[in-house]
Parts: sequence; C-alpha cells; structure tokens
Amino acid sequence: MRLHSAPRSGNSYKVRLLLGLLGTSCEVVDYDTKGGETHAPGFLESVNPDGKVPVLELGDGTMLPESGAILYYLAEGTPYLPEEKLERAQVLRWMLFEQYSLLLNLSRPRLWRMWGVEITAQRRAELEQLFEQGYRALGVMERYLGGREFFVGDHPTVADVALYVYPRLCAEGGYELEGFPAVGAWLERIATLPGYVPPPG
Amino acid sequence: MRLHSAPRSGNSYKVRLLLGLLGTSCEVVDYDTKGGETHAPGFLESVNPDGKVPVLELGDGTMLPESGAILYYLAEGTPYLPEEKLERAQVLRWMLFEQYSLLLNLSRPRLWRMWGVEITAQRRAELEQLFEQGYRALGVMERYLGGREFFVGDHPTVADVALYVYPRLCAEGGYELEGFPAVGAWLERIATLPGYVPPPG
Repeated sequence: MRLHSAPRSGNSYKVRLLLGLLGTSCEVVDYDTKGGETHAPGFLESVNPDGKVPVLELGDGTMLPESGAILYYLAEGTPYLPEEKLERAQVLRWMLFEQYSLLLNLSRPRLWRMWGVEITAQRRAELEQLFEQGYRALGVMERYLGGREFFVGDHPTVADVALYVYPRLCAEGGYELEGFPAVGAWLERIATLPGYVPPPG
Repeated sequence: MRLHSAPRSGNSYKVRLLLGLLGTSCEVVDYDTKGGETHAPGFLESVNPDGKVPVLELGDGTMLPESGAILYYLAEGTPYLPEEKLERAQVLRWMLFEQYSLLLNLSRPRLWRMWGVEITAQRRAELEQLFEQGYRALGVMERYLGGREFFVGDHPTVADVALYVYPRLCAEGGYELEGFPAVGAWLERIATLPGYVPPPG
C-alpha cells in the first residue's frame, strides 16, 4: 500500500492522520503540487486523471483517489467507521459537508498566504465571500457539536478525521476561532487521541 | 419518509432519480430556494442547519442532509450500491469527484442564466475559470468512461446517479458536449434505465 501525497496538502494529511490513529504503516510518495507534478502527463495517466492527491495505491496497483473515499476504505472494519446503516450515512453527510461547504472557504485564504499570491481587487472580493461562507460553515459545526464530543455517535469516526484539518489550520489564512468554543474544544479532543499525527504547520 | 427538496435543484433531482430507479415512493416537500425558504430560521433549526436541500426525513424524524449521503443510504442493500469494499470506495470516489471537481463548474453558469444574474467583469472572469475547470472535469469523465458502460463495475450505481444531472443540464449554462462522445453515450444509457425520471428542464 502506497500513499501518493503532498507535504502541505490538507486532504493528504487527513489520510496520514487516520493511518496514525489506526496504527497502520504505509509508504508515502510526496509530490510538489505547486510545481505542477500532479498535472504532469505521467501522473494523470498512471495515478489520477483528475490531477490531485491524495491517491491510495493498493497492492494490486488499483488507484483510489479522493480523500473521503480513501478514509472510508481504510476505516471499514475499524471503530472509525460505524457498522449501523444510518450512522454510516451520517458519517458521509459530514464528509460531504466538509468537501462542499467548508474546505474551499477555509483552505483558499491559507493557500493564497502560503503562496504569497497578490491580492487584487477581484481576489479581495472573493476573500470576502470565502470568509462569509467559511464562518457560516464553522457556525454549522459549532451549533451541531453543542454538547457532543464527536460528530457521529460517541466515538471518533472518519467524519471527525475529515472535518479536523481545515478548521485546525484556518488561522493561517486569517480566521479567528474565538467565537467557536465547541469547535475549539473538539479540535483539542482530536489532538489527544492515541496515534494522533500533527498537521502540516 | 419525506424528501425536503427544490423543484429545479440538481442535487434534489439526484434523489428523485434514484427513488424512481428503485421504484420507491416518498413524499416530496418543495421549497423556494431563491426566495430564501431554506435559510429561514425554522428550516435551519428543524431541517438542516446548513440551509440546503435535499434532506431526507426518516420515519423517526431523523434528518439526513447531503445528496450523496442520502443516495448511499437509500441504495444500501440494492444493486445501486455494490457490496464489495473496494467497489463501494470507488463509488464514493466518483460521488466526491462530482461534488468537488464537477458540480460547481457546471451548475453555476446554468444558475446565473436561470436567475438572469448580471454578468459583471468579475463574473465574466469567474465564468472563464468555471468553464476551464468544468471542461477539464468532463475530460476526466470522458477518458475514464472510454469503453466502460458505467462508472463502477458493469451495472449502474449511485455513482452514475450522482454524476448524471449536471452534465445532462450543462448545455443550459452554455456548455457544449460535442467533444465528449463517451459522456454523451453514457447520458443516453442512463435515460433508458427502467424507472428513469427526467431532470428539471
């Protein structure tokens, strides 16, 4: 088993975090995404036609892209994926929420800072929208968590693993988490799990 | 079982399509999303804190948001969700690809036309990006389909159901599918399945 990954990619980190929590070892192959390595013809043809990491390469050479699909695959049969049908669907619900309503809003401001992108008038307008929607999504997490310890059931699942990284790193893009105490407490709870691996700083 | 839905929402249509294919009946409650009904306090508190449809309401009152999670839940134990672990992960892979790499690029140009949104200079620049990324995502589907009939295995699954609607409607946003013959043939194949329900026109 081999993980095609990028050192500072949040989606790649999700898989490395789950591998740590499960105590599973895996060869990691790192790519320079900014340098375009994941859009080179060889990568597109033999690893992922969508030009993205992470991709899990299985023993028989099968390539499994998409962090959520990889998490689900690795967690089957472990406590990180419930067996009950509705709980599994709720895990998916939060993984899809993360990809669609949360990720881009929290990751793009961080990426632009990391890469030193010039903030033109258009990008400034886009940032305003991202922050508005990002804070809205963090509010959804905050209200849902309320007194809950984890997102589905009373144990950590791959929903928590998927949701963790971008809120954890969002301050690097200029977000402030002071108004989200339940999210803050949940972030600290994840960081105390046995096998926890810290995110790319 | 009750589906909270919107008449012209592509994500809501995915669920209605699967219900048709499975021959399952379900009460449908429609909302006026443009008029803000899914962001009203009552909806946020009792249906979906994320302000989105579709949401599947189960017999015990449990609310399940996110079209992908609903499709997965409804398809469990039917031919639309494989039982084999890797095939299930590949189904998820394509459902996540659809949400992250395909949907927004294909749906936003259609939405702007439908709502008669003014195309400012900023929106024109955004449209260029959307079309570039949308055509790239359609290219990923085209090359993957190649000689395949369906996305996972040799039977239709919820991956096909999730991927179908936005390519099917993308011409309404100005896309041209002439360069994607495998996608075109696959769209026609889906439309011949028993129980098929046509999309919102």
